[in-house]
Amino acid sequence: MPELRKDPIIDRWVIIATERSKRPFDLGIHKSLIRSGGFCPLCPGNEDKTPHEVFAFREPTTPPDGPGWRLRVVPNKFPALISTGELRRISEGIYERMNGLGVHEIIIETADHHADALSLSAADYRDIIIAYRQRIRALKQDSRMHYVSVFKNYGERAGSTLEHPHSQLIALPVVPKRALEELDGAQTYFHQKGRCVFCDIVTQEQADGRRIADENEHFLAFAPYASRFPFETCIIPKQHAASFEDADERMVEAFAAIMNTTMKKIAVALGNPPYNYMLHSSPFSRDVSPFYHWHIEIIPRLVRVAGFEWGTGFYMNPTPPEQAAEHLREVADADIHGG
Amino acid sequence: MPELRKDPIIDRWVIIATERSKRPFDLGIHKSLIRSGGFCPLCPGNEDKTPHEVFAFREPTTPPDGPGWRLRVVPNKFPALISTGELRRISEGIYERMNGLGVHEIIIETADHHADALSLSAADYRDIIIAYRQRIRALKQDSRMHYVSVFKNYGERAGSTLEHPHSQLIALPVVPKRALEELDGAQTYFHQKGRCVFCDIVTQEQADGRRIADENEHFLAFAPYASRFPFETCIIPKQHAASFEDADERMVEAFAAIMNTTMKKIAVALGNPPYNYMLHSSPFSRDVSPFYHWHIEIIPRLVRVAGFEWGTGFYMNPTPPEQAAEHLREVADADIHGG
Repeated sequence: MPELRKDPIIDRWVIIATERSKRPFDLGIHKSLIRSGGFCPLCPGNEDKTPHEVFAFREPTTPPDGPGWRLRVVPNKFPALISTGELRRISEGIYERMNGLGVHEIIIETADHHADALSLSAADYRDIIIAYRQRIRALKQDSRMHYVSVFKNYGERAGSTLEHPHSQLIALPVVPKRALEELDGAQTYFHQKGRCVFCDIVTQEQADGRRIADENEHFLAFAPYASRFPFETCIIPKQHAASFEDADERMVEAFAAIMNTTMKKIAVALGNPPYNYMLHSSPFSRDVSPFYHWHIEIIPRLVRVAGFEWGTGFYMNPTPPEQAAEHLREVADADIHGG
Repeated sequence: MPELRKDPIIDRWVIIATERSKRPFDLGIHKSLIRSGGFCPLCPGNEDKTPHEVFAFREPTTPPDGPGWRLRVVPNKFPALISTGELRRISEGIYERMNGLGVHEIIIETADHHADALSLSAADYRDIIIAYRQRIRALKQDSRMHYVSVFKNYGERAGSTLEHPHSQLIALPVVPKRALEELDGAQTYFHQKGRCVFCDIVTQEQADGRRIADENEHFLAFAPYASRFPFETCIIPKQHAASFEDADERMVEAFAAIMNTTMKKIAVALGNPPYNYMLHSSPFSRDVSPFYHWHIEIIPRLVRVAGFEWGTGFYMNPTPPEQAAEHLREVADADIHGG
């Protein structure tokens, strides 16, 4: 059974993923991507190779777990966490652990094994965003879960081990450290100034303009002022909104549109790089609506994180965000909307 | 000029390293390691390719910046930070930045270009540790500096761009986030229990034994209870000591001995993997001696950090630390002491 272990000094949890246990020799070399030509468990026709789907967009009358879908959500066959039972906290001397309770799902984004940021459409992103929203809404009903992390790893250097376009979702029984840090920072700002710090960021970025990569009526895509990585990009609703899963159809459309253009701009500017994106939204167990504001972080994986970053939590970024945003703005519409 | 920019929400600083500025096309592919056969600016005979040395172990009567050394410390030719001037804090609306003040040095660990964890000796580690100690003591005299990060990146996957054995040192005008988190956690524990949390960890690990990888009279090498990574290893003095740079000759000898055996055990068990190590010691500007306890973190780079870790600060580790420590204990003395 997997375990959740807490660092005894800082408020950081680790999943000891025993279901994925590796002997030293398995660890010596990074697993290679399942390449085109190899067998793909996420492709149409191989639905029996995944656990039963929990959500899908499919042609009318096609039954679950068969072909006819354009998006499927399935439990991870090798989950990092297990969804059965109640949460139990266990002390071991000065240490603390919990049983590895949680939910781990795969969002199979399209039936097309070879789709990437250049070929996915705004309609595809709409499907993907609605799937995220539906799964978060469903998992929010489970009182054992306090937070859902939605993320995508694209490319081997970004940690992906499957080539077929997919993202992942992990529901957690605790609010993770990174979310707590953002919540605490935003709450402190709100107490001091009476305003949402993210709303103030949107206002300042719009007035300044140098770090804006893209925008539409409802969303802003910008390079954060203190970007840790070259071409790090944040997409955020212009109007205050704490929880992603509360987005209505109009917001889903606008979010899909800017995800599509921003991911294409990054792909064109940087040659379809490996990337991670991570949704940051409210925890379930705490009302943070006055001061928190959901957003998505996109990180092209161009530079390696090394000892300095691990040792200090300081980052070193060779590309000023103003320069990165300028490059993204300069990607011509023709390049991203053409065939 | 480089800049230090502060994240407006969480207490995290980023160096915008303009001296190392990269255009998109330079970022597209990870820089390759300078391989044997290529020109090495750190090798004996090429001393004029580095800035003037600030410390060295050399044969008697050999002048600085020429051959005859077994270890050299030089300023980084492409520093992330600049050591001249005073610290200036500048507001930009809701954002905050500082000029990029700091010191960035390279510790060239040996004249042997091909040395690695298997060939470095306890005597080599003694030189390296004394060099770290001497440079930290010197930089501590500079009242503009508040913290020194000492770290090593070994291997391309661990972020190294030079093959010649070297570690690095960055002196910072602020205490970085990761250090603050540890200090705050340790201080809270001290206030609650009246004891150093690291001393309690040493006591519990010695009583338990399952996570111990190696030990000697003065130091313990163990796999942390909540290890984020497979074969993550912490080396810590058994007796309370807040600041690494206060270590006396006896402690330096014992630290060199356990660095040598632990790094060799990791190299034998995992096939000379890429790794990072990071020294964690006290900041200069605050008395933390009752509750802080220096140590070194060693992370073999076997698995990739991906969207889940970036998004949540949660980690997923497929190797229980008890299993990792057992593998390291089983590496026979003959394997690590033999020629």
